[in-house]
Amino acid sequence: MTGTVWGIGVGPGDPELLTLKAVRLIRAAAVLAYPAPETGESFARAIAAPHLPGGQEEIAIRMPLGDGQFPKDAIYDAAAAAIAGRVAEGLDVAVLCEGDPFFYGSFMYLYARLVVSCPVQVVPGVSSLMACADVAGAPLAARNDVLTVLPAPLPEAELMRRLALCDAAALIKVGRHLGKLRRVLGALGLLDQARYVERATLGAQRVLPLEAAGDVAPYFSMVLVHRRGEAWQ
Amino acid sequence: MTGTVWGIGVGPGDPELLTLKAVRLIRAAAVLAYPAPETGESFARAIAAPHLPGGQEEIAIRMPLGDGQFPKDAIYDAAAAAIAGRVAEGLDVAVLCEGDPFFYGSFMYLYARLVVSCPVQVVPGVSSLMACADVAGAPLAARNDVLTVLPAPLPEAELMRRLALCDAAALIKVGRHLGKLRRVLGALGLLDQARYVERATLGAQRVLPLEAAGDVAPYFSMVLVHRRGEAWQ
Repeated sequence: MTGTVWGIGVGPGDPELLTLKAVRLIRAAAVLAYPAPETGESFARAIAAPHLPGGQEEIAIRMPLGDGQFPKDAIYDAAAAAIAGRVAEGLDVAVLCEGDPFFYGSFMYLYARLVVSCPVQVVPGVSSLMACADVAGAPLAARNDVLTVLPAPLPEAELMRRLALCDAAALIKVGRHLGKLRRVLGALGLLDQARYVERATLGAQRVLPLEAAGDVAPYFSMVLVHRRGEAWQ
Repeated sequence: MTGTVWGIGVGPGDPELLTLKAVRLIRAAAVLAYPAPETGESFARAIAAPHLPGGQEEIAIRMPLGDGQFPKDAIYDAAAAAIAGRVAEGLDVAVLCEGDPFFYGSFMYLYARLVVSCPVQVVPGVSSLMACADVAGAPLAARNDVLTVLPAPLPEAELMRRLALCDAAALIKVGRHLGKLRRVLGALGLLDQARYVERATLGAQRVLPLEAAGDVAPYFSMVLVHRRGEAWQ
């Protein structure tokens, strides 16, 4: 008798954007696990917090988070071992994942370690990619548009080359790369088609023309570009 | 006293993948509107059906749907006028949208017409883009991967050029283009890295290596490609 690992997308930030399935599984799990910064609160846990029944065991997976940080294998090895141990005892473990588990999420590294020995199910969540477009009032892409998702830490020359080819783009992991993005989009004549979105669906949400944003953005921000200005035109 | 238009993402198919917010707003709205084929049932309405309280006015927006179909402006003009009329009477209208409203969705054409005269709010939903990756057990993209979303109806030469450049790709609107995709991915040596996903999160869901899929796919299918084979490698 084994338990199951549930990788659960908890959405972009608003606790009301959890799915019914996510809430059901999170409430039923004996054990919760979630990524957390080395000190301080887990964003994934904060999103799910209003739905927690209390009394669950919690595994906080402490790791360096944010701009340019890729945690060491040893952190995932230890977390996967802790989770697999609970599953072997017959317990279900809900792993809380910001947005969707498989869209640039760290859950994939746990998944790779766990799927070889445990039942693992992945539950889709609302992604920040769509949430940013929705709150900005700007469709991501339409008809036969090519949509490109570009991590902002990429080198300036590569961003330039990729953006020159795209119909529509979402620049993710913006953080301290905002000035670089402004230079690249300016050089391509796309500044007027660029919207900046910060903390989508949260109370602190901000939507601005890219030119009005500062030089440094929080990690949870995105720049959306559509070459035609509006996808529906 | 005016109502509000709510553009609501109902997710990829499983009714349990609606968000709490979607269910609350859909149940509270006096009027429902949704795209529907020229004859037969609306997929968006079918996804939401288990959550409907009964007794709501319904506006079925009948249009040619599916492969290569882009409905005429007159259809959106008439639907927008009907919705705006209800909103002017002080009623809330929930427009049900498959997946997320602003990811290649037809809602954007209603949005463009309505936002000039009515309050319009867009509520993010779980997108098929993420749902297909989740059910396939294959992360979409990781770290600084570039992810490209490519509509399969694009010409073969353009698909070839775009896929040659990408780290990871999602081919959407597959339908009758499956043979073409197989040729292109085969020529690029990417067939072994391609997964075919059909009707993700529904009972009829299928996940197959691309080589094992047939020559024609339903409109609701996707091909996911990752150049490294697995995003986490």
